[in-house]
Amino acid sequence: MKNLLSMEHLSNEEILHILDRAKAFENGEEPKTARTYNVANLFFEPSTRTKTSFEMAERKVGCTVIPFDAGFSSAVKGETMYDTVKTLEMIGIDAVVIRAEEDEYYNELLEGINVAVINAGDGAGQHPSQCLLDLYTIKKEFGTFDGLNVTIVGDISHSRVAKSNATALAKLGANVRFLCPQDWAGDFEAYHSWDEVLEDSDVIMLLRIQHERHTVSKSFSKESYHEQYGLTPKREKMMKSSAIIMHPAPVNRDVEIADELVECERSRIFQQVRNGVYTRMAIVETILKGRE
Amino acid sequence: MKNLLSMEHLSNEEILHILDRAKAFENGEEPKTARTYNVANLFFEPSTRTKTSFEMAERKVGCTVIPFDAGFSSAVKGETMYDTVKTLEMIGIDAVVIRAEEDEYYNELLEGINVAVINAGDGAGQHPSQCLLDLYTIKKEFGTFDGLNVTIVGDISHSRVAKSNATALAKLGANVRFLCPQDWAGDFEAYHSWDEVLEDSDVIMLLRIQHERHTVSKSFSKESYHEQYGLTPKREKMMKSSAIIMHPAPVNRDVEIADELVECERSRIFQQVRNGVYTRMAIVETILKGRE
Amino acid sequence: MKNLLSMEHLSNEEILHILDRAKAFENGEEPKTARTYNVANLFFEPSTRTKTSFEMAERKVGCTVIPFDAGFSSAVKGETMYDTVKTLEMIGIDAVVIRAEEDEYYNELLEGINVAVINAGDGAGQHPSQCLLDLYTIKKEFGTFDGLNVTIVGDISHSRVAKSNATALAKLGANVRFLCPQDWAGDFEAYHSWDEVLEDSDVIMLLRIQHERHTVSKSFSKESYHEQYGLTPKREKMMKSSAIIMHPAPVNRDVEIADELVECERSRIFQQVRNGVYTRMAIVETILKGRE
Repeated sequence: MKNLLSMEHLSNEEILHILDRAKAFENGEEPKTARTYNVANLFFEPSTRTKTSFEMAERKVGCTVIPFDAGFSSAVKGETMYDTVKTLEMIGIDAVVIRAEEDEYYNELLEGINVAVINAGDGAGQHPSQCLLDLYTIKKEFGTFDGLNVTIVGDISHSRVAKSNATALAKLGANVRFLCPQDWAGDFEAYHSWDEVLEDSDVIMLLRIQHERHTVSKSFSKESYHEQYGLTPKREKMMKSSAIIMHPAPVNRDVEIADELVECERSRIFQQVRNGVYTRMAIVETILKGRE
Repeated sequence: MKNLLSMEHLSNEEILHILDRAKAFENGEEPKTARTYNVANLFFEPSTRTKTSFEMAERKVGCTVIPFDAGFSSAVKGETMYDTVKTLEMIGIDAVVIRAEEDEYYNELLEGINVAVINAGDGAGQHPSQCLLDLYTIKKEFGTFDGLNVTIVGDISHSRVAKSNATALAKLGANVRFLCPQDWAGDFEAYHSWDEVLEDSDVIMLLRIQHERHTVSKSFSKESYHEQYGLTPKREKMMKSSAIIMHPAPVNRDVEIADELVECERSRIFQQVRNGVYTRMAIVETILKGRE
Repeated sequence: MKNLLSMEHLSNEEILHILDRAKAFENGEEPKTARTYNVANLFFEPSTRTKTSFEMAERKVGCTVIPFDAGFSSAVKGETMYDTVKTLEMIGIDAVVIRAEEDEYYNELLEGINVAVINAGDGAGQHPSQCLLDLYTIKKEFGTFDGLNVTIVGDISHSRVAKSNATALAKLGANVRFLCPQDWAGDFEAYHSWDEVLEDSDVIMLLRIQHERHTVSKSFSKESYHEQYGLTPKREKMMKSSAIIMHPAPVNRDVEIADELVECERSRIFQQVRNGVYTRMAIVETILKGRE
């Protein structure tokens, strides 16, 4: 693996290798890379957990992190993504982690660039490092993906998490279902009532309602979304005893999930964040070693 | 000490311990912590000296500083302070330094969070690290607080520096007085003329007129404030020979203090900045060790 | 050398010393400074390559880089440059790298400040580190400056690169000519047609059209500028076989230079970026050692 752009490019073998390395790091193993690498994080959209998680993971893999302030870079002067990344290559950067508004921004980086590119979210496209940490969280819980019922709830059509996870989980043998209002399903087939998915789900994966992407229908108040599609205490009680709750966060409390459930026993929401550091260490190590 | 939130929580013993450690660091002693800690600085308001001072102090205590860009974090998506800090905890952050607009923002961090919280300024509330460096500056100068006349001048009611210092200095035995226009005194009793405090003050502590908080009365021009409440060369000459001038900075030159006095012999304004690094090293070390 | 403010202050000997050290670093030599220094980069204008290049160079010289977010500093509260830099001095910063909008902002730092100041661009003034990396690029190519025909093309009057380079190249023995529209020449004498300079130039140095500084005449469309003053494939073919193309970047593709020429064989545009790191290592090392 020389880049991480989309889950669609990864074989099951590559996915499982990353999950194995994440496990090793969680067990205290030290990363092994041939030298100290220089990396930069180019976040053109706000982020706390993804950016901070990569910052931590990169340092734990022994990288030097060169600060890059996207909002104060030459990108605001209209510099192309290619020229920005090529510039960083010439400065001595070995890998860039990029979040950008544009779908598949990375296509212009596939030729002429000798820096590793790790996609930390492209528009309404993919979010592979989030997907891999979700997979790690599920594997840690159940040991396998085979036959698991995973229900993804929310704005499927605009969610890069939904797309990345649906692709990968299906390839790994899980049974992926969607639950959402009719006009949020996009190209996917979806359920529209909890009744059909609540009791046999092994994983309920809630998606963030992205107010900042203006995707909430005007006909939906927060309250009515919560009532129809939110995970309420009453619904939580009907879940399988072994089932878990996931959410990529940041959570809109009392919208996607009742405030009191965010840290309930079956919630893995904050554990996902912890798992993210191990997973991103695995991603960074794998890609840097893939270029040695 | 497991957090530093407000001077009201600190005993004299705790205060004096921090001042002692600051002294030791100024004398070249090396900080001693059990391991390398990860810290993050969450500044939701502009700052040069407090943020940079903590950045330096943290590195001198051997911490790894993980960058956090408040203006580009998930806070702008409406994430709660609790969720932001809990996320950082799961990523592996051991301590956060926070400056925020909201008074006592830290109340929502007292339960469920296992990260040390150091308050670097909460709204119009407290600014304990500034207070401690002011105390360090005074102690270094006079050896004691007992019986010192300390006059705090400016917008008392909106100043977190005034509140933190008034509380602490009184507990330590100093005689604290306020000088300000009538409607800036808040709940405090204040003098309104220099005549009553100028000649017997050991410390004159000027507060910044916070244009950016819109606290200057419309009836006051900068010139008239300077004339009535500013420290002018004429007033400086009337001060006790051993008296010192302090200001938390940034200074509005020719408003709170005449331009030519900012670096005069009895000014400790820039020394306060230097003392701030030692004091913050003491704070960071004390809190990290308090959790070992 | 204790500061680097303007090329006008540098003797040929000082320039050549920096170029020699840059060469040594490119050949793998290790920087030698007496201790670990603390530096801060104060960029009050957007920048990718200059800021990132200094960040990398400083680390390679063994410095600790203390982050400074200009847009979120006390400067937005109206703090003067003097007070900001004096504050950083008291915090323990040894050198600052500054980019600012104001011409010769550094004049207020010449007295009372004990921090090294490296000018990374002042308004429409100078940009000495860019100049030095350009000189390094030329010397690496031709071994000498003597008698070289260097043609600088673009908005001469507003360009700090043009001014810095014209001064230095002439002192070093090169023959500097300008090519630009009549009203962009400022105080310089300039050619207005490629015919007079294209075929005998050893170096064609293109300047960025600074849309963000509103310097493009309203009478010029991008297309007409490209046609009259841009480097087109047809013009490139008429260049001397040994001649090279330079540009400080970011490039406006198809304005100053045809898209397809940016990485052509005689282009040194991205090599300039690589050379910038070695040159800035030399600058930082020279100035820190100059103060030991």
